[in-house]
Amino acid sequence: MLTRIDHVGIACHDLEKAIAFYESTFGLVVASRELHPEQGVSEAMLRVADAPAGTSYVQLLEPLSPDTPVGKFLARRGEGLHHVGYGVTDITAALASIGATGVRLIDARPRHGSMGASIAFLHPADVGGVLTELVQAAG
Amino acid sequence: MLTRIDHVGIACHDLEKAIAFYESTFGLVVASRELHPEQGVSEAMLRVADAPAGTSYVQLLEPLSPDTPVGKFLARRGEGLHHVGYGVTDITAALASIGATGVRLIDARPRHGSMGASIAFLHPADVGGVLTELVQAAG
Repeated sequence: MLTRIDHVGIACHDLEKAIAFYESTFGLVVASRELHPEQGVSEAMLRVADAPAGTSYVQLLEPLSPDTPVGKFLARRGEGLHHVGYGVTDITAALASIGATGVRLIDARPRHGSMGASIAFLHPADVGGVLTELVQAAG
Repeated sequence: MLTRIDHVGIACHDLEKAIAFYESTFGLVVASRELHPEQGVSEAMLRVADAPAGTSYVQLLEPLSPDTPVGKFLARRGEGLHHVGYGVTDITAALASIGATGVRLIDARPRHGSMGASIAFLHPADVGGVLTELVQAAG
């Protein structure tokens, strides 16, 4: 069902600083920058590696305000790993299969994510404390 | 420098339960199980996907006692994402390059990790709160 680790999502206070750090320290390159007001984040996807199943990224997330999900995460835990996204080929089928096991779906239907992907989050309380995202890449 | 997301490390209270969950919910398969007393963990690597640059895994970590790094993490934060491991082709060169940027190295020299890999951790305080591991796969 899972085809790859699509990305790790990392919460940061300052997106520009975080991008500069990952560029200069690890040689990563920004593949996209997007503003998602409905999710309350400004974000960047930095390409780690390409593979037949798709590309893997580091996703850097800066909250648009303190009362957003990522803003609350930063207040509670500070900067760091926020979630993991796994690639799937058919997100609707994956959600049905995972939902049938009893895992609660934050998104019962896929919604729009970074770079045109269809995404959906699973409830961390049902995934061992891990905020888990499914990603069906665009195209 | 980074060739892939090698794995996400996930801290759990009960390794058997966590393995059973990832098998039944996501269809992952255990690739290796190891005891690392020097790191204070019992762990399992579950294969997510193979790619030319290497395999990606979910690594499940159960502490051997409360006074281990993962045991302290669980007491402080509960179950969840613990670290991310990136693949590199030459870990000694990568450590030299990253260390030269001012990031503190928890492991100045590579040590033995899961499945015969050479691994080294970077200090999370210098990587935006993310405990970051470099992994040079065996062979």
